[in-house]
Amino acid sequence: MVEFTISSYSAKDQDALWDLLAPEFQAGETYAIDPYISKKDAVEYWTGGDSKALVVRLKGQVVGTYYLRPNLDGGGAHVCNCGFIVDKEARGMGVGRFMFEHALELAVEQGYLAMQFNFVIATNDRAIKLWQSEGFEIVGRLPKAYQHPKAGYVDAFVMFRELV
Amino acid sequence: MVEFTISSYSAKDQDALWDLLAPEFQAGETYAIDPYISKKDAVEYWTGGDSKALVVRLKGQVVGTYYLRPNLDGGGAHVCNCGFIVDKEARGMGVGRFMFEHALELAVEQGYLAMQFNFVIATNDRAIKLWQSEGFEIVGRLPKAYQHPKAGYVDAFVMFRELV
Repeated sequence: MVEFTISSYSAKDQDALWDLLAPEFQAGETYAIDPYISKKDAVEYWTGGDSKALVVRLKGQVVGTYYLRPNLDGGGAHVCNCGFIVDKEARGMGVGRFMFEHALELAVEQGYLAMQFNFVIATNDRAIKLWQSEGFEIVGRLPKAYQHPKAGYVDAFVMFRELV
Repeated sequence: MVEFTISSYSAKDQDALWDLLAPEFQAGETYAIDPYISKKDAVEYWTGGDSKALVVRLKGQVVGTYYLRPNLDGGGAHVCNCGFIVDKEARGMGVGRFMFEHALELAVEQGYLAMQFNFVIATNDRAIKLWQSEGFEIVGRLPKAYQHPKAGYVDAFVMFRELV
């Protein structure tokens, strides 16, 4: 059994966080984010505003991160949104599932009534299977909404799960 | 035939813009935005960043506004997003349809390949009918994703149209 530790993001994690965000955003295969985004803007995107960001460690090494935040404001603030990134070197060890389950619990704890992923790129099978394994449904399909650097124009899904 | 004039938003329109945004956001029936949002934040939301905001006048009076911007960055930047607000006093005069058609043309002109509305609250029949009349489809349904001040928890739709 792999033993992960998880803690709230703090400024001292900034370099380790960027080491996770940079390759993910630069590859442009999973997030609709400018691949040339600066470190400052990327860290702000992940951790700023109402975002609660966490980092996961294995034997002291940062292996993953996720954020949890309201998906919208006002009458939409009872639905949360998350983003997850696993270090490529740590794939297949359950980091993603560990974070996802943690996020679901944290979301309930914080009083959210549902969780929404706004833009799951259709080529991201690994993520889609993981979300579906915990009760998420594809509630929307955005035709050719993502220009994938290798696959060209691909669909994106909106995925949703009620939490209560 | 009602004669509208339309122009890019500029700082001198700020008070007139706020006169449109404030009642709409404060009522909380159409936008998932904090009803207590400040004037500064509301104007920034509507006109800031990559947003191209416009104002529509009838006989010199501002009667509506819309913005057009990329819905996402990176590989998602070929899909645009818009928001529209019509002055309540000017309802039924075609301001909404005028802006919508202008937006569709502007979007094509700016090279966007599709337009997406991320969160159309199910009670907003007027808007839904207007979007559908110009070829938009409901591509997603978010169950009980909006807490409406009068109707309680209601669904929201994701609406989408390719432009080419």
